Amino acid sequence: MSRSTSHGDLLDALHQRLGARGLLRDPEAMARYLSDWAGDRLGLPLAVARPATTQEVAETVRLCHAHGVAMTPQGGHSGLVAGAMPAADGGELVISLERLDRIREIDAVNFTMTVDAGCILEHVKQLAAEQDCDFSLSLGAQGSCQIGGNVATNAGGLNVLRHGMMRQLVLGLEVVLPDGRIWNGLTALHKDNRGYALSQLFLGSEGTLGIVTGAVLKLSPRATQSRTALLGLPSVGAVVDLYGRARRECSDLLSAFELMPRRCLELAMEASPELSDPLGTSYPWYVLMEVSASGALDLDVMLEQLLERGMETGLVLDGALAGSEAQAARLWQFRESMLEGQRRRGEHLRTDISVPISAISAFVIQASQAILERSPDCEIIAYGHVGDGNLHFNILPPTDMPEEEKKPHLHALEVRLFEILDDFGGSISAEHGIGRTKQAAYLARLSPVERELAEGIKALFDPEGLMNPGRILPAHR
Amino acid sequence: MSRSTSHGDLLDALHQRLGARGLLRDPEAMARYLSDWAGDRLGLPLAVARPATTQEVAETVRLCHAHGVAMTPQGGHSGLVAGAMPAADGGELVISLERLDRIREIDAVNFTMTVDAGCILEHVKQLAAEQDCDFSLSLGAQGSCQIGGNVATNAGGLNVLRHGMMRQLVLGLEVVLPDGRIWNGLTALHKDNRGYALSQLFLGSEGTLGIVTGAVLKLSPRATQSRTALLGLPSVGAVVDLYGRARRECSDLLSAFELMPRRCLELAMEASPELSDPLGTSYPWYVLMEVSASGALDLDVMLEQLLERGMETGLVLDGALAGSEAQAARLWQFRESMLEGQRRRGEHLRTDISVPISAISAFVIQASQAILERSPDCEIIAYGHVGDGNLHFNILPPTDMPEEEKKPHLHALEVRLFEILDDFGGSISAEHGIGRTKQAAYLARLSPVERELAEGIKALFDPEGLMNPGRILPAHR
Repeated sequence: MSRSTSHGDLLDALHQRLGARGLLRDPEAMARYLSDWAGDRLGLPLAVARPATTQEVAETVRLCHAHGVAMTPQGGHSGLVAGAMPAADGGELVISLERLDRIREIDAVNFTMTVDAGCILEHVKQLAAEQDCDFSLSLGAQGSCQIGGNVATNAGGLNVLRHGMMRQLVLGLEVVLPDGRIWNGLTALHKDNRGYALSQLFLGSEGTLGIVTGAVLKLSPRATQSRTALLGLPSVGAVVDLYGRARRECSDLLSAFELMPRRCLELAMEASPELSDPLGTSYPWYVLMEVSASGALDLDVMLEQLLERGMETGLVLDGALAGSEAQAARLWQFRESMLEGQRRRGEHLRTDISVPISAISAFVIQASQAILERSPDCEIIAYGHVGDGNLHFNILPPTDMPEEEKKPHLHALEVRLFEILDDFGGSISAEHGIGRTKQAAYLARLSPVERELAEGIKALFDPEGLMNPGRILPAHR
Repeated sequence: MSRSTSHGDLLDALHQRLGARGLLRDPEAMARYLSDWAGDRLGLPLAVARPATTQEVAETVRLCHAHGVAMTPQGGHSGLVAGAMPAADGGELVISLERLDRIREIDAVNFTMTVDAGCILEHVKQLAAEQDCDFSLSLGAQGSCQIGGNVATNAGGLNVLRHGMMRQLVLGLEVVLPDGRIWNGLTALHKDNRGYALSQLFLGSEGTLGIVTGAVLKLSPRATQSRTALLGLPSVGAVVDLYGRARRECSDLLSAFELMPRRCLELAMEASPELSDPLGTSYPWYVLMEVSASGALDLDVMLEQLLERGMETGLVLDGALAGSEAQAARLWQFRESMLEGQRRRGEHLRTDISVPISAISAFVIQASQAILERSPDCEIIAYGHVGDGNLHFNILPPTDMPEEEKKPHLHALEVRLFEILDDFGGSISAEHGIGRTKQAAYLARLSPVERELAEGIKALFDPEGLMNPGRILPAHR
């Protein structure tokens, strides 16, 4: 469908219902709704609707449905697969949830918080902390991403090994369906076995089945102490072995276990010159780990025992244990600055894959070999979340490669990487989702029976194909 | 559809495919497939199929589908809502999964185990333990219930507050769809955001969308130490307050927190005369709590601090801390014998409800008042899992009530109880599911939009309505 003046009726009706603040049509005002963190930008939408309540979202959707106009639900623009970017044809109405930002209820006794979809993750975390609770979802984008987007993409991040993905952190949802009806599944019950798991179906559906407008989030007790360590290790195999020991010796108190190759530290130091080499000597692999707890537990004894044994057995070569919060923050800065360091290198391949934890080492070795065979001068930066088997196996193209060759070259390397991944039973999208960017690779691996079920679900919820069409599955119109 | 000889063709084909061991038609041989733990028994099936492989399940289903014959998938007969009992009309084929009992793979490094649906939970737990891992699902029925049934019912149990329900313990599934096709979703990935969450939809669908034939289970490190305490408390309010403190002061190491009224201990001592009053004096409410961990953590310091503070503030009146595994087992025996004590009282109302944790105290007080107003001589036994807000609010009828009056009387009390529950935003089924027994109460509370979505999902997966028809939703034929 192309952008046309025939939608004047719809826009007039939306303007009347939402007011000037609620409907943006001026290209300049719309500019910030057109691109995301990854830099994806496809086209101008029909307009940007900014409803302020669930009821307004429902009416906006009802009007679009009546006019046969496609919709792009939008959160905090921190997606990485172009899932929330309006289509190039200009036929979609962006529905931004940013004005739905009320905290509806905090119940610290029930360890729950009920919030509007447009609440910023960081804000939710702060309010939880004020009630002596944690909301454990932890992402680089937490200062701007919104809860509705976290639900729609089943967000992951740094603390998944301890608390799970968004799927494990949501008890109930409120969703505006593609025809504008509201499904109220906002229960605050920790256990509820009534019928089919609709909330679970919306989680991770990337806005293709409806627009999440509210969520009941599960909180945990606020950690009152934590310890952070940066360790140098000889191999990925040693990293995986150490993870197994850490899971066992740190009970359920391990909250992060991040793998980084030496090159990541170098990129971090390039991007943030105030950082100096944390361990003096250079090691091929590093682990950034964190344990945390509330209550009267001695984390030092636990961690020292783990590290001592790790050193005795040669798994750990060296390590720095943060002695203060400031020192811990400095160690985490390597993890964050490394992302900036990668970005400065310009065009590069960013992936988000997962394999069984037991396959991480063999996969990294085999995949690196296969990539370097094809592109001896590229640089591989494979870092990630060991406890989730989730690697960001990224590739920087040769520095002397002409700019216009980089994209096709990196694409060919991705194809090869995914072939190796298939041999390991891996996933081409561990946490970022499918959106548009990963669609071809997703569909190529989808069995006919699963494709039929997925298309059936889409058709059941959205028979007209108006809700975020062309994401996950191809648009059927 | 009534039982008729016109299914001779189907039975012959099944017999040819599955052999004599794989198809039971003799009423005596079928007897043990006709009733469950709750004592529900509806009728004789057409026959009992006992396929031994996923392929045999698929062919059995394909044949039933071709002949238009309804199917009842069946696990370990420990259901409580008649979900796996064949219909009274004799038209259903029971498909027992008991011969699918292979352990397909244990990967202790990935903390996963891949098993056939017919594996007994207890066996899975033992094998996990041999690999220094725990499979944390913990139920009274674990000696007989099967993994497929645990998946189909999204089983809960005693350790949900620490490790979650079955939904949180499954990474991938293999399912035979109602037309006999196999959906292979058996990934062993801890993080995987590819498309719609089909596994999550099958979890808790009570065999109405397909037959689970295999599952990848998530393991955790084996606990190497645990502490069990039985505490006496003055009120349900004190129990909930203590829970909040325990969550905070025991970090994530709290593995059980069970509420029991005094009457539960008395019932346990009636059923098991070798048990003696554990705290000397009698208290109105008791908590049976457990903390567990692996690694070098001092659980005694943690627990003693919690209990000392609990006593100082009057939340805890008295307590017994088990000094050995044998003592801990004896404390747990109260929890188990109490169930036997209830059963000995004959006809009684068994419920499985949940409310927000913050509402437990007010709910118990209000519901008890409302029930005793209607039935001053009944006995209320409200015990449950505090951390899940899950209460088994059970009612023993007056002992002198004529037997034939008990059922209608208890039903009227259940109706009243559920009315109160509605005021608290509670669930009429926290962990047992809907099956047939809870269907009327479930449908009465279902919004039109949710009913339409649920019926749409059922129709999408099972357009002919042959797979466990009449469970959760009414049969549409």
